[in-house]
Amino acid sequence: MNTFHTISEIRNWIKTNKLNGKTIGFVPTMGFLHEGHLSLIDAAKRENDLVILSIFVNPLQFGEGEDFEDYPRNYEKDSKLAEEHGVDAIFHPSINEMYPKKMSATITVHEGTDVLCGVNRPGHFDGVATVVMKLFSITTPDKAYFGMKDAQQVAVIERMVSDFHLDLEIVRCPTLRENDGLAKSSRNVYLSEVEREEAPKIYKVLMETKDVILGDMRPSVQQVKQFLTEKLTKELSAKVDYGEVLSFPTLEHPQQLSGELLIAVAVKYSKARLIDNIIINVNEGRD
Amino acid sequence: MNTFHTISEIRNWIKTNKLNGKTIGFVPTMGFLHEGHLSLIDAAKRENDLVILSIFVNPLQFGEGEDFEDYPRNYEKDSKLAEEHGVDAIFHPSINEMYPKKMSATITVHEGTDVLCGVNRPGHFDGVATVVMKLFSITTPDKAYFGMKDAQQVAVIERMVSDFHLDLEIVRCPTLRENDGLAKSSRNVYLSEVEREEAPKIYKVLMETKDVILGDMRPSVQQVKQFLTEKLTKELSAKVDYGEVLSFPTLEHPQQLSGELLIAVAVKYSKARLIDNIIINVNEGRD
Repeated sequence: MNTFHTISEIRNWIKTNKLNGKTIGFVPTMGFLHEGHLSLIDAAKRENDLVILSIFVNPLQFGEGEDFEDYPRNYEKDSKLAEEHGVDAIFHPSINEMYPKKMSATITVHEGTDVLCGVNRPGHFDGVATVVMKLFSITTPDKAYFGMKDAQQVAVIERMVSDFHLDLEIVRCPTLRENDGLAKSSRNVYLSEVEREEAPKIYKVLMETKDVILGDMRPSVQQVKQFLTEKLTKELSAKVDYGEVLSFPTLEHPQQLSGELLIAVAVKYSKARLIDNIIINVNEGRD
Repeated sequence: MNTFHTISEIRNWIKTNKLNGKTIGFVPTMGFLHEGHLSLIDAAKRENDLVILSIFVNPLQFGEGEDFEDYPRNYEKDSKLAEEHGVDAIFHPSINEMYPKKMSATITVHEGTDVLCGVNRPGHFDGVATVVMKLFSITTPDKAYFGMKDAQQVAVIERMVSDFHLDLEIVRCPTLRENDGLAKSSRNVYLSEVEREEAPKIYKVLMETKDVILGDMRPSVQQVKQFLTEKLTKELSAKVDYGEVLSFPTLEHPQQLSGELLIAVAVKYSKARLIDNIIINVNEGRD
């Protein structure tokens, strides 16, 4: 496995391999890899000749008072896991390599950001889109792998790829879960013991909401949202940031419960903000 | 010469040629080609195996009340000129091909836009940067050619290329002039006979300002700016948008007259807004 810390080094390696006709799968991460990330790597490994994993905690997507400094890092463990899963090259740049000077131009995301995590994290998706555009430009992948746990991120990136005619495919990968249903996340380590025990209820509420939507009651959008947020508030000690039902991938407030729907939740525990979601197809679900 | 109207067509053509090791020079234009454009094509022709010329009047860079509808177009003549100058492929997409839906993400330019043309054209350079990023993504050039007549545009694009690690070289090409000194521009056709006769004075004032800077008086920045704007106002019937002296390529207000300086002017005639500039190196100029 190769490890590159500079853009020029990985670029040379990529060019040589492209000349030899190799296809490239790219998995962008902020490191502290868990099984969710590893499932992206495994998918990339199946579908491409070579897999590049980037590990970069991107300051641009953290807001004032967010956990940039405290975001967990463990490069040695990440590197070992990457090698075990057959990663061909790790790209692990310094902040100075990625941002040698203040960015004079950045990506601004106009749609799909005034909902869900965008509401409480102004500029977050601009920072995500900007660094992903930079990483795509550096790694020139054929396919790039994103987890559906960050469904809003997937929607934003897919639209950016389309808007800028980027010549690559975004592969959506399913959310991995612990046995008790909790979505895997680097931030789960911040949960207290009591919080960790309670957190699987997030997924339970998502599934109950799905049952309500697909059930015989035929509730309105408003009734479903009310059920979701009341249930979250009742079941969890965490502060409920949002419980939302949106069309996917457009991330618009639906007029009625039909087609593909995203049921998404964010809650704040003492030291960890957790997000989770499921996507359901109402039409298929009722057949 | 090939003509492509769709992204997928030109992309296929480019991929085939890249597989054969061909280098690509790219000249992005809004058409209505004059000798200024043709000099970019000739430079691209000298330095690359293949030359792509794009002709696309980009609505995103025109502001409210600007001349998008009236911007001169003459595709047949452009196509003939391109062929004569050895262009290998014209990319001439429809608006719908470039903007099939409202852009969800765009480029925002933060620096170098609050001066010169940026002041009176809010969003203009965002629109330029966004379409150029799209065109670079489509044409994947080795080198791209820009005229120094739009010096601010060159500065903005160069910084975007650096910010996003785009793997291409921006080639700066000198401003072409009529025999009487007027910078060539598509918009010169809008000048009345009287205006056309007067317009060469713009360049004359630029050269006089250069003499003032390099002369024995050793004037201050403020004195030079005053000379420039007063002289423009006195010599021209046009409204003076700005007469400015800035460091290049940073486009900052200089503390003193040293290093590379951009002397830039924009004036408004009845139907045409003209820009012009020269770049001088004060240190070299005084040796």
